[in-house]
Amino acid sequence: MKNAVVGQSGGPTAVINATLSGIVEQCRASDKIGTLYGAVNGIEGLLSDNLINLDEALAKDDIELLRTTPSAYLGSCRKCINDEDLDRIFEVMELHNIGCFFYIGGNDSMDTVAKMSEKALHYGIQVIGVPKTVDNDLCGTDHCPGFGSAAKYVATSIMEITRDCTSYNTESVTIVEIMGRNAGWLTASSVLARCNGNTTPDLIYLPERFFTKEKFLTDIKNAVAKKKSIVVAISEGIRDEKGEYISKGTSFGNDTFGHSQLGGAGRALEQLVKSALSCKVRTIELSLLQRSAAHLMSETDMRLSVIIGQRAVVSAQQGKTAVMMAYKHTNYVPFTCEIEAVPIVGIANREKKVPDEFINAEGNGVTGKFIEYAAPLIMGEVVPPTQNSLPLHLIRKS
Amino acid sequence: MKNAVVGQSGGPTAVINATLSGIVEQCRASDKIGTLYGAVNGIEGLLSDNLINLDEALAKDDIELLRTTPSAYLGSCRKCINDEDLDRIFEVMELHNIGCFFYIGGNDSMDTVAKMSEKALHYGIQVIGVPKTVDNDLCGTDHCPGFGSAAKYVATSIMEITRDCTSYNTESVTIVEIMGRNAGWLTASSVLARCNGNTTPDLIYLPERFFTKEKFLTDIKNAVAKKKSIVVAISEGIRDEKGEYISKGTSFGNDTFGHSQLGGAGRALEQLVKSALSCKVRTIELSLLQRSAAHLMSETDMRLSVIIGQRAVVSAQQGKTAVMMAYKHTNYVPFTCEIEAVPIVGIANREKKVPDEFINAEGNGVTGKFIEYAAPLIMGEVVPPTQNSLPLHLIRKS
Repeated sequence: MKNAVVGQSGGPTAVINATLSGIVEQCRASDKIGTLYGAVNGIEGLLSDNLINLDEALAKDDIELLRTTPSAYLGSCRKCINDEDLDRIFEVMELHNIGCFFYIGGNDSMDTVAKMSEKALHYGIQVIGVPKTVDNDLCGTDHCPGFGSAAKYVATSIMEITRDCTSYNTESVTIVEIMGRNAGWLTASSVLARCNGNTTPDLIYLPERFFTKEKFLTDIKNAVAKKKSIVVAISEGIRDEKGEYISKGTSFGNDTFGHSQLGGAGRALEQLVKSALSCKVRTIELSLLQRSAAHLMSETDMRLSVIIGQRAVVSAQQGKTAVMMAYKHTNYVPFTCEIEAVPIVGIANREKKVPDEFINAEGNGVTGKFIEYAAPLIMGEVVPPTQNSLPLHLIRKS
Repeated sequence: MKNAVVGQSGGPTAVINATLSGIVEQCRASDKIGTLYGAVNGIEGLLSDNLINLDEALAKDDIELLRTTPSAYLGSCRKCINDEDLDRIFEVMELHNIGCFFYIGGNDSMDTVAKMSEKALHYGIQVIGVPKTVDNDLCGTDHCPGFGSAAKYVATSIMEITRDCTSYNTESVTIVEIMGRNAGWLTASSVLARCNGNTTPDLIYLPERFFTKEKFLTDIKNAVAKKKSIVVAISEGIRDEKGEYISKGTSFGNDTFGHSQLGGAGRALEQLVKSALSCKVRTIELSLLQRSAAHLMSETDMRLSVIIGQRAVVSAQQGKTAVMMAYKHTNYVPFTCEIEAVPIVGIANREKKVPDEFINAEGNGVTGKFIEYAAPLIMGEVVPPTQNSLPLHLIRKS
């Protein structure tokens, strides 16, 4: 009986471990899979033969705790593999009698899956990609695990920030910078905050549209004139007509250190607004918080992340390889979706941008169609376990 | 029968409305208080005669919802009053037959309470301050409403950030900048994250100690050598031996806008660490999130915030004036405290710093005594009401 190995890769999310838990559970339930190993730090763990026996490492309670532990329990990596790496990877896999490799990751990781898939045929090893990314930019799947929870964090934070910003009777512009360098899915999801009586964000700028400072300032001035205190959501990756990042011109550093460094798009726009309006301007970067806030995860996202992990194992047992697991939405309200395995060819090295029909004509907001798409993904509350009134995470001993 | 008025002032917290709910409830329960008015934007609402009849505005369900709505429902302000303002304030209060003024706020607001208290005697009006501040820096009370919830947010966020930062097998320094310009209580509370198997923050720097860049770099190098990926908590207000803010030297701006602006302490130190170590360095500012995250409030903080509001009304009925309501801790485990009214004289215009016994000898961490002090204040979970899986807040119609 062959063994299996699972790895996690790329930027963490709140639910990448939920997917791992699904893989672990399903492998244990299978009589066709021997030992399940975990590759420490993704493909790096395969290159350095740093594998953990997950059957020994994870008790039943640990698997449960994995579901609400953010980031990558096995450790992550950002590595682009070459031919030499490939040889070494299969050598290590043969050493451990591996019959199947599950790789949970985003775009870069699916590139790894694609590269491995071809060569794996010669070894009789199956390679299965399992999506995850808060950026939601993987092709072949209707959404990505991790996006829903990050979207929920973004929307909740914007609502809370808005209560704060609007409490003063003064003009103010609050710029919230959100992840997604080339695809604006997560920034777009800020629109979900426009509910329950909340009316922000007032403006939303995605990297799918060229960003014009003049238009931006006009938008801001109009909004402040109407509402006094406004909240603006921008993607970290907004670019001007020449394709240059808005953050590019902004650097900060000082004489003491002698270094200069790129600031964020929010900081650059903060400067711009300050120079044009004489009101309070503030930037809030949601930074790592937006992708690691397991305390606020979406139940829908968590549940579907577990299931897609389980289905990856089922697909392996059905003999599938060179595939990525994917969601196909079948209905929005109530939300239902199917999970299938799609060929990895045509998925790797492509980015799914926010489509035109989801962006408003002015390029400073999103459409009702986007809300219809995104709202179901944040649904449902999870109450993660706590101890001392703080989160209880499953932490790997290294 | 005389009426009463309540106002909210200063920087918002997650529970300033919980205190308001306590005041509203207790006033309604009293047969000695007529109508309860709310001053819109604190003292500004008194100056401009902008009062809301809260008996009409708030239904029973609204009062319940106030408890989990962050920031100031009535609106806040930052205003230092002069003699002319005082005359106008009492004129407006007489107009509405006010017998008692409750002011929920921090240090600046207690200055207002102190200024009003003396003159109020001539009008037969009682003035009662009710504390709130995430900075926890009010004298006369063992802790301040709002601190516990902010502390819980800080500790939870640091734990989640840590899962993210430590997932890569590379050296990294993550600097988390926390509020508290002159008092380091909230930054100190980051230490609470060191539980449930989590070992960060590795270093903690408070404004109560002079900050030396050389010592800081030595601390960082030692920590990275041991642990690879470290998380450092710093107060926004750390200063060097000359008393100058560490953030002072750092500015960012560019040729396009021609403006320069003070960056944060975290950004300044990020530059410093980058120039000294060749590893990934990142700054995360918890910004407004840390004081408005009602979704993660401490049940202890929320409950005690409601009660201190109720007790303010009881104190008024007992004829007290020129006082601030205060907590006196009577036990730590299990946590118990009493609430009393303390003279406002000696509270206003003073800041309670973190005492020496709570700071370690090296000035890069806190002591077990601080943990004993702070841990009870974050205890207990609140599950705020949601709609569309997002927070339901009580929003004042303006």
